[in-house]
Amino acid sequence: MAAVAEAPTATQQAYNELCGKLRELNALEGISGLLGWDEMVMMPGGASESRGAQKAALAGVVYDKKTDKEVGALLDRLKAQSSQLTPVQSAVVRDSSKTYTKATALPKELVQRIAKLETDAYVAWVEARKATDFSKFAPYLQEWVDVRRESARLIDPTADPYDVLLDDYEKGMTGARLDEIFEEVRAALVPLIAQLKSNGTPPDDSWLAGDYSTKDQAALCQEVALDMGFDLDNGRLDVSVHPFTGGAHPTDVRMTTRFKEHDLTEGLTGAVHETGHALYEQGRNLSPEWKDLPVNQALSMGIHESQSLLWERMVALGLPFAKYVTGKIRKHFPSFPDRDPSDLYSAVNVIKDPSFIRVESDEVTYGMHIILRYEMERALIKGELKVEDVPSVWNAKMKEYLGVTPGNDAQGCLQDVHWSAGLFGYFGTYLLGAMYACQIYQHAAKEIPDLEAKIEAGEFKPLREWLNANIHRRGSLDPSGDDLMKAVTGSPLKPSVFLDHLRSKYAKLYKL
Amino acid sequence: MAAVAEAPTATQQAYNELCGKLRELNALEGISGLLGWDEMVMMPGGASESRGAQKAALAGVVYDKKTDKEVGALLDRLKAQSSQLTPVQSAVVRDSSKTYTKATALPKELVQRIAKLETDAYVAWVEARKATDFSKFAPYLQEWVDVRRESARLIDPTADPYDVLLDDYEKGMTGARLDEIFEEVRAALVPLIAQLKSNGTPPDDSWLAGDYSTKDQAALCQEVALDMGFDLDNGRLDVSVHPFTGGAHPTDVRMTTRFKEHDLTEGLTGAVHETGHALYEQGRNLSPEWKDLPVNQALSMGIHESQSLLWERMVALGLPFAKYVTGKIRKHFPSFPDRDPSDLYSAVNVIKDPSFIRVESDEVTYGMHIILRYEMERALIKGELKVEDVPSVWNAKMKEYLGVTPGNDAQGCLQDVHWSAGLFGYFGTYLLGAMYACQIYQHAAKEIPDLEAKIEAGEFKPLREWLNANIHRRGSLDPSGDDLMKAVTGSPLKPSVFLDHLRSKYAKLYKL
Repeated sequence: MAAVAEAPTATQQAYNELCGKLRELNALEGISGLLGWDEMVMMPGGASESRGAQKAALAGVVYDKKTDKEVGALLDRLKAQSSQLTPVQSAVVRDSSKTYTKATALPKELVQRIAKLETDAYVAWVEARKATDFSKFAPYLQEWVDVRRESARLIDPTADPYDVLLDDYEKGMTGARLDEIFEEVRAALVPLIAQLKSNGTPPDDSWLAGDYSTKDQAALCQEVALDMGFDLDNGRLDVSVHPFTGGAHPTDVRMTTRFKEHDLTEGLTGAVHETGHALYEQGRNLSPEWKDLPVNQALSMGIHESQSLLWERMVALGLPFAKYVTGKIRKHFPSFPDRDPSDLYSAVNVIKDPSFIRVESDEVTYGMHIILRYEMERALIKGELKVEDVPSVWNAKMKEYLGVTPGNDAQGCLQDVHWSAGLFGYFGTYLLGAMYACQIYQHAAKEIPDLEAKIEAGEFKPLREWLNANIHRRGSLDPSGDDLMKAVTGSPLKPSVFLDHLRSKYAKLYKL
Repeated sequence: MAAVAEAPTATQQAYNELCGKLRELNALEGISGLLGWDEMVMMPGGASESRGAQKAALAGVVYDKKTDKEVGALLDRLKAQSSQLTPVQSAVVRDSSKTYTKATALPKELVQRIAKLETDAYVAWVEARKATDFSKFAPYLQEWVDVRRESARLIDPTADPYDVLLDDYEKGMTGARLDEIFEEVRAALVPLIAQLKSNGTPPDDSWLAGDYSTKDQAALCQEVALDMGFDLDNGRLDVSVHPFTGGAHPTDVRMTTRFKEHDLTEGLTGAVHETGHALYEQGRNLSPEWKDLPVNQALSMGIHESQSLLWERMVALGLPFAKYVTGKIRKHFPSFPDRDPSDLYSAVNVIKDPSFIRVESDEVTYGMHIILRYEMERALIKGELKVEDVPSVWNAKMKEYLGVTPGNDAQGCLQDVHWSAGLFGYFGTYLLGAMYACQIYQHAAKEIPDLEAKIEAGEFKPLREWLNANIHRRGSLDPSGDDLMKAVTGSPLKPSVFLDHLRSKYAKLYKL
């Protein structure tokens, strides 16, 4: 007898109906992604006003869909029947409930205040930075602190406000857990940095200086990105002023790079970094049954950054990659010095001293830039740090953590754009990403036979496919980065893995 | 004393509220334009499915906005108070009322039937054309005729169905007026074509054959487009498989071109044609007080085509342009034959004989391709022509009008995609465009001193600015192309202007 299809249950019907609405929302957000890419890469300058109107219209539509009362009713029904849901379905309901709560929690007046502040605070930050005068930006930072505290309270009155903010960037992470992680890192990094600076012998990187045509850099980096597995049938590579990876869908990933004539390393590591992001995006296309649902999204900013930093720091800043890439560099730049790949490895790993600027820092000092910002924004949200004290506290922490004092606020507390956009909870994900990357890579190295030899030979497929299967394909299934780490590596994030890596790598490089 | 601002009247408030909604709709449709451009020019192949979902989601949103009951209520209030509206406001209400009526007239079942037919009929047309077998396409053409008659009846039960369909492409035009225009053209063109073929001496164009690198053609054509006044601050130039002009806004016009190695003329006239469209689009940005409202749209397909064809046929196929462009061609192609510009003028104006394919035809035979299609689709909608008789009637008309018989249906009634998309009322606009172009150009030539000398010198600014002021800036203010022609040239469309132009130009070229 032929099998008779069972009629879907009421719960199943509600779930299917929810998925229809979520897929529509996903499609509209994909369009938003495309508009963003186009604006940065293709749009003519005169179109900025009309593009603003288009983005506003689309944002209005997305807001209406996110706050659709029918979605709320479906979610209520599904949460009441949660035992009938599969783990994937539960994850969809979990994440879309959170989105619905956040979208519906804020009154219109607050939403409008935030929209206005986004413009005003950015303008004030640009001006303050230009004038190297924090006081011009201070009132806007205060307003952001107030607005974010208020928003967090409206979204979840029972939670620590900072936890609510964190959740936008690092699902399932809490301030308490971050305190624990970052304290361990700080305790190890501060003395390591001091030791490297006082007792270490920096490798020679002067021989890398030179002029490298940006056209040839672009050709080199495209070759590397394709070797790593960037898929041109499901993405594009372009050049933009600010390199980023965006796009409209896992089948439509738009990656951009930037090259400077005098800096080969920045262009190359930047391209590898963006390719890491892009491979995660394209890898999210591997679970057809989850297609276009929240569970198929990237888990968090930290996990996204783990994918870019795994390729950038764990792969491209390693010796096997130096052996792979030296020949490629010579092919594109025939006059590149005829040095051993180990010289390239040493040169690209020189620690910046002094390290004032986060985005120009290095694998070792980078972490302390993040911890400094984390501690300050956490104290701001707690109400334990006054906005007016930001410059002095910043400078004191820079001295304590990195042994340097910024010459002015532009080189100090005004260097990053994030706070001008009210992004509290974002910075920590950069360092989490670096630590996730290290732990994931070291686990992959145990599971993939001869990984280093494969990298040296330019065979990146085993690593990419391992990441596809273990990280990318899981999407947003896990409730937090710690849970993902546990599922993949057997343990939640362990800062010691990252710290041991730095200690051992830099002791050798700096002949401690 | 300071002036006191008067409070807006209730009518004014309703008008402002309507404008807010229309501008939002305009922004969403601009996004749709950008998605279309991106799909043709930038999108990676693997993204077609996700792009389909994005387009469907956006189309759903646009449909909701177009059928918004609040828009209907505002329009009803404004129509009841029409005496209080300025001419521009009246035009906005007139055009948005029509859009609202059309969007709300069709029941969901019919909308879904149309959406399905759009896909199915296209597939059937591709297959029928490949198999050179009209019968495979016939049932879908019949379904389109039925669906369009039904749609027209629902939109306006009192009107001739063909008039309702026409209005989608050529605002204010009727079948009766088109009959009158096209009969006059047919009566003059058929004997002219026969005479040129039997008694004329075709100019020599063999010397134009050769290989022209597409890269150099692109550089030449970009130079010409910029000379004509294409504004790169409010647009982009790219290359695509099918050249078109689209984009997201008058400040964001995306024009594309295509070049074939062996055909310099097609690339150059194609680029001039698209630049004509693009200048109209960019020119629509000149009326800030109408910004982003229906009155700032292009008036009709025919008027849009008048702008491309004015530049292509009246300018680029003229002797002064040949004098301008010969030097440019030699700059980009140093081995281009050293002939007099009058030889270039003659060569680019050779009439195709036989002329089977519309898109490969010429200024003279083109009109009869259009009239043939117009007569047939008008008879189909009237119910006076059976779908099964389309091939035989087509072939008989080709013999009568152009003196040729297609070898098969692919070369005959299956050559164009339009009917497979149910576009009845579209074809006529191509020929209207050519006639509008001629009448507009001849009027401009009276108003602009030494226009031909200016073109010869590459000074296109006076013509462009004249078109800006007289055509582009008026947007969609006039109720029809005839009204625009009357306002600009002092008379409605006069076919005799076009016919005299052809007779006089080709009598000289063909030494009659």
